[in-house]
Amino acid sequence: MDATRPGANGNPLLGVDIGGTKVAAGLVDSRGRILLARHRRMVARGTPQEGLEPVFASIGEVLDDPRAKRVHTIGVSVPGWVDPGRGIVLRAANIPCWRNFPLARKIRRRFQLPVRTGNDGNLAALAEATWGAGRGYASLLYVTVGTGVGTGIVIDGRLYSGRAGGAVEGGHLPINFRGPRCGCGKRGCAEAYFSGTAIARRARRLAATPAGRKSKLFDLAGGKIRAVTAETVARAAAEDDPLAARILDEAAGYFAIWLGGMIDLLEPGVIIIGGGMGRLMLSLRSRLRRGLEAWAANPRREEIPLVAARYGADSALVGAAALGLADNE
Amino acid sequence: MDATRPGANGNPLLGVDIGGTKVAAGLVDSRGRILLARHRRMVARGTPQEGLEPVFASIGEVLDDPRAKRVHTIGVSVPGWVDPGRGIVLRAANIPCWRNFPLARKIRRRFQLPVRTGNDGNLAALAEATWGAGRGYASLLYVTVGTGVGTGIVIDGRLYSGRAGGAVEGGHLPINFRGPRCGCGKRGCAEAYFSGTAIARRARRLAATPAGRKSKLFDLAGGKIRAVTAETVARAAAEDDPLAARILDEAAGYFAIWLGGMIDLLEPGVIIIGGGMGRLMLSLRSRLRRGLEAWAANPRREEIPLVAARYGADSALVGAAALGLADNE
Repeated sequence: MDATRPGANGNPLLGVDIGGTKVAAGLVDSRGRILLARHRRMVARGTPQEGLEPVFASIGEVLDDPRAKRVHTIGVSVPGWVDPGRGIVLRAANIPCWRNFPLARKIRRRFQLPVRTGNDGNLAALAEATWGAGRGYASLLYVTVGTGVGTGIVIDGRLYSGRAGGAVEGGHLPINFRGPRCGCGKRGCAEAYFSGTAIARRARRLAATPAGRKSKLFDLAGGKIRAVTAETVARAAAEDDPLAARILDEAAGYFAIWLGGMIDLLEPGVIIIGGGMGRLMLSLRSRLRRGLEAWAANPRREEIPLVAARYGADSALVGAAALGLADNE
Repeated sequence: MDATRPGANGNPLLGVDIGGTKVAAGLVDSRGRILLARHRRMVARGTPQEGLEPVFASIGEVLDDPRAKRVHTIGVSVPGWVDPGRGIVLRAANIPCWRNFPLARKIRRRFQLPVRTGNDGNLAALAEATWGAGRGYASLLYVTVGTGVGTGIVIDGRLYSGRAGGAVEGGHLPINFRGPRCGCGKRGCAEAYFSGTAIARRARRLAATPAGRKSKLFDLAGGKIRAVTAETVARAAAEDDPLAARILDEAAGYFAIWLGGMIDLLEPGVIIIGGGMGRLMLSLRSRLRRGLEAWAANPRREEIPLVAARYGADSALVGAAALGLADNE
């Protein structure tokens, strides 16, 4: 499968993005643009069948559209661990109703179309490789920094997802095994240092200090320490608050330590950065480059482009649609 | 190139392993066995041309053998950073005479045969994928722990070596950015924690303590702290010395932290472990597995086999020969 060559026949592609609270199904054209999208509220905590209903409903509604006539594959993104070969959802933290659940088979039986599945971070990487910031590169590392840290790798147009779909969880590489506890149970993971969650935690700690109480961080949260979020940090930094700037500078430093390791390990053709906090750290470009001088041993580290992702919230839907290109040629 | 399918035509393959002190050229058969090898002392610190002479001599001697009649490609391993697409040695710490040196072109002109090049760690991984412990797996992570920590990744039979041959330097992933200084200039790299060099340094420190002076470590080094090496630790551990066992246990613990990160990132089909210290740590299998329970978030971590490398000191020569399979079909 050469996913960098969109199907030339112009058939629209159907992508489904299943999240913990929402489902979106949509049609994507051969240039990676969403033609239409249908949304449902996800039912993630009921029976497995209850979880399927909003998925079926959103797909059905898209297939009812005349433009969907020539859809030949349904690509599905799941925010968790899915075995792409067999289309089984092994475990997804935010969709507890499905565990070792044969999602692809269920959808295939309902709609009589081939189904391909993948993990949301991996599919976002595929979207960038196919139509986004990764076009023209032989390999890419994708990283999205939002609440957590998601990653994906595409090599020669092919998504890399490991032996059974469990890769690529780069957010759980430890950068300091004596560091803070991560949600995954390990210590000092990347995600525990520079995710939105980690940044917000650090900001709350600093906002509670005497200096913090004089900062815009404190003001913007209405004086409630618990209301300080990563978004508060972003806004305070935009208003030139020194404490917020310091927090972002630290986070970008940790990000550079991790990026440097990834460069030494993978030397990707391009590094694509998405997510709210990712974009914000990318805006501190000279800080990142300075960090990479210290934290990437690769002597050509500065030649690897650091670029913003094309896709945002719709990256998993578009990437899921891109899975259909393998059947579209 | 599907390097997992040895050329069926039975032509022998020519591999060259250039090291900082020695050059070996050899013929490898279609089952990955070395048929003959010729050795020279490497001249690494003279002019670029002086460096070429032992390489030419060893290759010439192999090509003079009647069995080399149908050799069609020369595969070359370099212990450093080489751009495999262009065959240029960019930088190799132990071969200072070549910097941005067009090695492939020089060898091609001399012998009128196509030349392919690669990095020694990567080529060792290719050897394992083609004929060794990696056969039958869709992806593998290779790690050799000797003086340093070398790594390689093969995916679907293809060597992954990054945008310009600078990958895969997994030994320079930091596991603790506040950790000890690594030879590469970074802090807390894997190599600074569990390489033979790191293990020897730790052993010398402990051997100098009052308890250490009563250990076999101290005895085996003839009472000279400076004579304690990783090899001393291995021998003392084999004689049941508690201090040596403790040092290896610690090293295996660090190794598991790093392996856990690699599993979460890459979820390889198999992990192949080579090198003297690598094999020793692999012998502490239950220690490694216990470490992975804590340091790999992937819920199927225990299904990933940890196996010993087939090849030892000749891995780079065999891997270099395997490069010729791409031209052998």
